[in-house]
Amino acid sequence: MKTNAVFYHAGCPVCVDVERNLAQALDPARFDVEIVHLGNDRARLGEAEKAGVKSVPALVAGGAVYHINFGAPLAALRG
Amino acid sequence: MKTNAVFYHAGCPVCVDVERNLAQALDPARFDVEIVHLGNDRARLGEAEKAGVKSVPALVAGGAVYHINFGAPLAALRG
Repeated sequence: MKTNAVFYHAGCPVCVDVERNLAQALDPARFDVEIVHLGNDRARLGEAEKAGVKSVPALVAGGAVYHINFGAPLAALRG
Repeated sequence: MKTNAVFYHAGCPVCVDVERNLAQALDPARFDVEIVHLGNDRARLGEAEKAGVKSVPALVAGGAVYHINFGAPLAALRG
């Protein structure tokens, strides 16, 4: 069974690089990766926060949060 | 052609989790991942530093450094 993973980002250059080189590099045989742009889809900020996301880019997989490099704090995305 | 990636860690709990859930989750069709324990293999500290690694765990792939969560600063590994 595949693991669902969610990659949260905000379109920043750091985010784009991590999306291309890590989030989309996960083994497609093992992971279904959903890409969520929190700048465009603010309705999902609460869900990201609840999962433990503090900044973007971040990957949530198997209940764990992986903050990869640093683009922006989540607070900066609340309009 | 596969991309060579090096995952640097130091055996810490954060490192072990990231190794299992991210470093070993990369698509094996696209990546050759080498795992380096900098606590046991201090001869490679210089190489890691030169690649831009500041803390472990970190993944170096395609010339870029990805610091994933935070286990320990590189300086703490110099004996």
